[in-house]
Amino acid sequence: MNRIPVSSPASVTVFRRILTHGPIGRVDISRATGLSQAAVTKAVTPLITAGFVVEDDELRSTPVVGRPISPLAVARDRAHIIGIKITAERTYGVLTDLAANVLARTEEHNASTAVDDVIAAATSVVDRLRDSSPTPIDGLGVAVSGDVDREGGMVRDSPLLGWKGVALAEALETATGIPALLENDVRALTVTELLFGSARDASSFAVITIGTGIGCGIYLHGKVVEGAHGVAGEIGHLPLGPRDAVCSCGRRGCVEAVASTPAVLELVRAGHDDPSITTEDAFALAHDGDPVARRAFEQAGEVIGSALAALVNLVGPETVVIAGENVTEYDLYANALRTAFSEHAFGAASECDIQLRPHRFDDWARGAAACVIEVIAGGLATQAA
Amino acid sequence: MNRIPVSSPASVTVFRRILTHGPIGRVDISRATGLSQAAVTKAVTPLITAGFVVEDDELRSTPVVGRPISPLAVARDRAHIIGIKITAERTYGVLTDLAANVLARTEEHNASTAVDDVIAAATSVVDRLRDSSPTPIDGLGVAVSGDVDREGGMVRDSPLLGWKGVALAEALETATGIPALLENDVRALTVTELLFGSARDASSFAVITIGTGIGCGIYLHGKVVEGAHGVAGEIGHLPLGPRDAVCSCGRRGCVEAVASTPAVLELVRAGHDDPSITTEDAFALAHDGDPVARRAFEQAGEVIGSALAALVNLVGPETVVIAGENVTEYDLYANALRTAFSEHAFGAASECDIQLRPHRFDDWARGAAACVIEVIAGGLATQAA
Ligand SMILES: [Zn+2]
Ligand SMILES: [Zn+2]
Repeated sequence: MNRIPVSSPASVTVFRRILTHGPIGRVDISRATGLSQAAVTKAVTPLITAGFVVEDDELRSTPVVGRPISPLAVARDRAHIIGIKITAERTYGVLTDLAANVLARTEEHNASTAVDDVIAAATSVVDRLRDSSPTPIDGLGVAVSGDVDREGGMVRDSPLLGWKGVALAEALETATGIPALLENDVRALTVTELLFGSARDASSFAVITIGTGIGCGIYLHGKVVEGAHGVAGEIGHLPLGPRDAVCSCGRRGCVEAVASTPAVLELVRAGHDDPSITTEDAFALAHDGDPVARRAFEQAGEVIGSALAALVNLVGPETVVIAGENVTEYDLYANALRTAFSEHAFGAASECDIQLRPHRFDDWARGAAACVIEVIAGGLATQAA
Repeated sequence: MNRIPVSSPASVTVFRRILTHGPIGRVDISRATGLSQAAVTKAVTPLITAGFVVEDDELRSTPVVGRPISPLAVARDRAHIIGIKITAERTYGVLTDLAANVLARTEEHNASTAVDDVIAAATSVVDRLRDSSPTPIDGLGVAVSGDVDREGGMVRDSPLLGWKGVALAEALETATGIPALLENDVRALTVTELLFGSARDASSFAVITIGTGIGCGIYLHGKVVEGAHGVAGEIGHLPLGPRDAVCSCGRRGCVEAVASTPAVLELVRAGHDDPSITTEDAFALAHDGDPVARRAFEQAGEVIGSALAALVNLVGPETVVIAGENVTEYDLYANALRTAFSEHAFGAASECDIQLRPHRFDDWARGAAACVIEVIAGGLATQAA
């Protein structure tokens, strides 16, 4: 089975522009990407040859001098991709076309977080989506939280799944017969935001996800930051929390230790000496004005606001998107978050545009599919070069 | 007077490679930069035409097939640059050739931090260095700490100088008759490190400066991070210090509030109830085992180590260079720094290569000259394009 090769040549930039802004003329691509028109043509030619990009003749224009020009668009039906997002409880999947439009979705309960059980759930998701696809599936994108080796297709360490050193890409390829690309889930969501979100036209941005974990994807100088040693965007483990709070990672004082959903729940349970309180109960208590619950959410907001300030002071993104499954309860910590951010953002860094954007797990799965689309486009262009 | 235009095309990358690795062949440039050989030739041609880059015929090789190939080198004597670094007390200057080799140095006491006094000191430094130059000076690089607008040549806010909205580039151009480029001083030092330091071959790195202020330059994806809103690398103002410590910026809990040289001195003075203690006294007390002084340096080390961990967790640079005028006293806080870093660096982020590198103010001035050299090279190529 051929692993999907990971590459990121200039043609990814060109394909990305066509994907997000097509139909679009070569001159406009050149202007937006800073590449010469010759470079744009060179990048586009193999994509057209492979049928991934088409000239949109309906929009053809004839200049006063020279031959007619047709803008470029992605050939949506040319390929079909499945993206899945694996959480501890469930596996979510979407079927997309080559423009990452979602054509079908499904989800499946994981019998447990054991690798075999998750692969069984994922295979069942893939099989159902495959049945909905008009053509054979060209690639499978897999989003998993934690430390992920893209090139090797290996989950190095996923605390939420309790996995270390799992060769997931290969296992899923064997189970499904589809070439697979493994991605860190926050990176996949960052790609979604880059291609289809409100950060689409930002020169730089960060996505912060708040939920079971607290993660961050940073897009800078045209690329998602990956870290020279494979670690980046670990905003959940900045030492901005109380020094005595112990994190799920074993360290003290991490942001996640007081601001993740399980940490907030733990504080509410401890304050009421009632381990039966559920996440939904904690939300309800806080909305009803229970002081223990309110304080737990406020502390989470303070620490996340400080972390946000640390991020903008260091990296200075144009936009920050706050996302994740608990953003619907954002009102419980929004004030504390904003106050802490204003207190600690340095000078013009406070002008950073902060946006709120609830995501469903399907968005993460769609991001995994979008990563595959980018890699297929990049790989094609590399083969032709 | 023509302001030096700010630009950063691909040719800066090519010129940078010739500067740091020349004499070097076109094929090796192409391999190292990822640019096509055609793109390398296109970028190099105007540099050769202008006499900035020469073909080193002594190293010419004749391949079995094709015409002889000469590697490329910077024409060192083709231009001369002055770089200055302005501190509150003194102005430091260096004269360099086009390869940023330092040919002469000088410094001058500032009568005060008033703009006119600093311009007088800078002019005197420039005049002395100009006398040492074999050719007229091609550009003046000016490194100043604080929030600096490169394009506009404006010091927006420099707390250390007490300046707000000073049109420094224009004032120095009028006083010296040389086109001037204003740079944030940490950015200038980052360029020095990029071109001539131990981070020369790193894919990404950060420079942290410890002294009167605590700053950080981040090099990522081929560029120094500048921040969409003009702020980045403000590691001195991450909220990782004690909540009650007030920073010179007015915020609470900043790293600088307990870890800058003045903050450490203030703690030692307060602990001994003796405002006459000098920085040198504080160093001596700590070396002699005075518990107040030792604790002040240890706290500084802890907070800087946490800040370093925050940096690597978020951005994941390959290398971090710790620099600045107080690094000679590094032994006073090295242990606390390393312990805090190990405690909070996340997973593989702890593999980041941390290097210690004492800098003199001349290195900052040389960085300012190097920024001018890059801009001249980039500007030439842009004009030709
Ligand atoms: Zn942690
Ligand atoms: Zn501060």
